[in-house]
Amino acid sequence: MDTTKKTIIVFSGDLDRVMAAFIIANGAAAMGDDVTMFFTFWGLNAIRKPENIKVKKSFLQWMFGKMMPRGADKLGISKMNFGGMGATMMKMVMKQQNVTPLPELIRTAKEQGIKMIACTMSMDVMGIREEELIDGLEFAGVATYLGEADEANVNLFI
Amino acid sequence: MDTTKKTIIVFSGDLDRVMAAFIIANGAAAMGDDVTMFFTFWGLNAIRKPENIKVKKSFLQWMFGKMMPRGADKLGISKMNFGGMGATMMKMVMKQQNVTPLPELIRTAKEQGIKMIACTMSMDVMGIREEELIDGLEFAGVATYLGEADEANVNLFI
Amino acid sequence: MDTTKKTIIVFSGDLDRVMAAFIIANGAAAMGDDVTMFFTFWGLNAIRKPENIKVKKSFLQWMFGKMMPRGADKLGISKMNFGGMGATMMKMVMKQQNVTPLPELIRTAKEQGIKMIACTMSMDVMGIREEELIDGLEFAGVATYLGEADEANVNLFI
Repeated sequence: MDTTKKTIIVFSGDLDRVMAAFIIANGAAAMGDDVTMFFTFWGLNAIRKPENIKVKKSFLQWMFGKMMPRGADKLGISKMNFGGMGATMMKMVMKQQNVTPLPELIRTAKEQGIKMIACTMSMDVMGIREEELIDGLEFAGVATYLGEADEANVNLFI
Repeated sequence: MDTTKKTIIVFSGDLDRVMAAFIIANGAAAMGDDVTMFFTFWGLNAIRKPENIKVKKSFLQWMFGKMMPRGADKLGISKMNFGGMGATMMKMVMKQQNVTPLPELIRTAKEQGIKMIACTMSMDVMGIREEELIDGLEFAGVATYLGEADEANVNLFI
Repeated sequence: MDTTKKTIIVFSGDLDRVMAAFIIANGAAAMGDDVTMFFTFWGLNAIRKPENIKVKKSFLQWMFGKMMPRGADKLGISKMNFGGMGATMMKMVMKQQNVTPLPELIRTAKEQGIKMIACTMSMDVMGIREEELIDGLEFAGVATYLGEADEANVNLFI
């Protein structure tokens, strides 16, 4: 089988968009492709640990950290979220329809060897520290992303 | 003329974004390219029939179906929509400026032989049945999308 | 060094997304790539001059122009903007973290010879005239974008 490469920038932190990203990524990996996901800005929220980790931050970083959802299970949806009710409804329908929930999609991505990179510049801006993110990530910047994208035949920004 | 291929994932159901998708798709098709559009999540709203079609749904699916816009003519815009007023204003300006309205862009896409695929997993989640969508679609999942994308030289996520 | 080409459609006018676009574009240009940015719909707001330029518009165009942010320094963020407070906070954190602010990213893009194209159809819809946009742009439509994208190995829609 020919192995080709895909990259996905996960900029959005909306449940629906992040799920789309992981469904495409896992699909490609299942077909034998190398896949790199690059988490930046709000996308970092999808890979935060659910626990409150004590780390030093500036006041503004602390505020951003407080206001942003902590992890895959807390994300809202991009439309009709209504303070989280929309996300809950969507998760209920997904369960009815046997759609794999996001935390499991992330586990599968790791198991399939998908390279998950957290954008260090965004981490600085959002005030998110390595300890606050799930295990198994790499940490890098835009140059690394561009290097990966140059080797890929499909590059998406989600 | 060299025929190359383009794919566009239409994830968004916002009038402005869906129009951008169809303008790029129709432009590429007019230049001789093969084009595949893959409608997923909110993007399905753009290809719903305007009529209320009676189909069996779970309660949550029925609610989602009720709350989401039915077809290209009902979409809101992604910014400054103000309960639909923004969309109406934008459609008025577009008419003034002789910009082709979305329903006609969709007809042109079909006439140009653009392959329009509705994502079956999203249809399950949103509770949208084949009968509720416009004619001439194909129905498939992420593996089909990835197969198309592997043959294309431009792949966008909108 | 191998020169390859990248294109980015800047559809969004949100500070965070526009910054992501310029950071990727400048990164690629710094690595020796040709880069084309195509500004369309809300993305045009990022390249408006901050001054109020007197030009003839229809009433609706005038209203759109009034309601939309004038230039890189006025953009809101896509989440938690709270009437601009979120954007201000984000700019403060970025300053703390020595992240280059957007107006400077745009200047760098110009200095690096990044081709910046304003979408003429969107300008008509938004009622934005050439005089209202920053200097050094090209003006073209979707066919030009597609020509550029056909030569590129990475094409993003932001």
